Amino acid sequence: MVEREVDDVAFMRMAFEEAKKGAQEGGIPIGAVLVLLEDPPKVLGRGHNQRVQKRSATLHAEMDCVENAGRLVGSVYKNTCLYTTLSPCDMCTGCILLYGIPRVVIGENHSFRGKGEELLRSRGVEVVVLDDAEIRGYFCEWIRRNEGLWNEDIGV
Amino acid sequence: MVEREVDDVAFMRMAFEEAKKGAQEGGIPIGAVLVLLEDPPKVLGRGHNQRVQKRSATLHAEMDCVENAGRLVGSVYKNTCLYTTLSPCDMCTGCILLYGIPRVVIGENHSFRGKGEELLRSRGVEVVVLDDAEIRGYFCEWIRRNEGLWNEDIGV
Repeated sequence: MVEREVDDVAFMRMAFEEAKKGAQEGGIPIGAVLVLLEDPPKVLGRGHNQRVQKRSATLHAEMDCVENAGRLVGSVYKNTCLYTTLSPCDMCTGCILLYGIPRVVIGENHSFRGKGEELLRSRGVEVVVLDDAEIRGYFCEWIRRNEGLWNEDIGV
Repeated sequence: MVEREVDDVAFMRMAFEEAKKGAQEGGIPIGAVLVLLEDPPKVLGRGHNQRVQKRSATLHAEMDCVENAGRLVGSVYKNTCLYTTLSPCDMCTGCILLYGIPRVVIGENHSFRGKGEELLRSRGVEVVVLDDAEIRGYFCEWIRRNEGLWNEDIGV
């Protein structure tokens, strides 16, 4: 259990690196990592929000990560964990449900929290919120400076 | 009301054309069209499933359609209707909810019906199922010949 918690922190750092890569590209700094729960765990894909970079309306961080993991048979996803720096929106929640990803670890849910976490739990997905102060502070500050872009990303 | 029904049929034909284009490319024949409800209505985007063509795990027909519509501010989606040849999966349902698309017209829901329609209605989205016999027959026949690919697409 302790080792699993250590893994969570390490993979969330990787997701946060993705988020910062997005910021360096001028994009929305949200990152995600999809991990196969083998021993040792294996990263299947990583990604970050591509709204600005690819002018994409669908490549949120979680979606970009799943897209980068490529075509996989359904059974693979059933043994994975998705790490995302921010609480997932309805679309990313739906992607998690489509593929039956059984565990989702969230960096923080102060900057955004829709109905995703509740829906995931109601469908049997384990949802862990790390409430990471650094990720929270980083993203809150970004939103403060980019309100219009952020509203576009969440469909407001 | 009669005119609106006529429009529904016309735009569903367009979505079906997209589906058949997908089949011609060797892909999964599901199509979608996003329409701005102006007078006259305006097609914002159209698309079809890209699992085979782009080796994409996220570009279902509805997602490809929204992606092809490009970056739009949130207010635009609030006056649109999404036409899709098949009942939406969890991911595409989530995309509809994210952007607040208020109306969804579905070609048929015999070949596939997840929890999407129910969730959409519970969140205030108008869901119309045309139950089009031609679309239903076409897709049922395709599934019969492509069971493995179809299962991959719905995460089974």
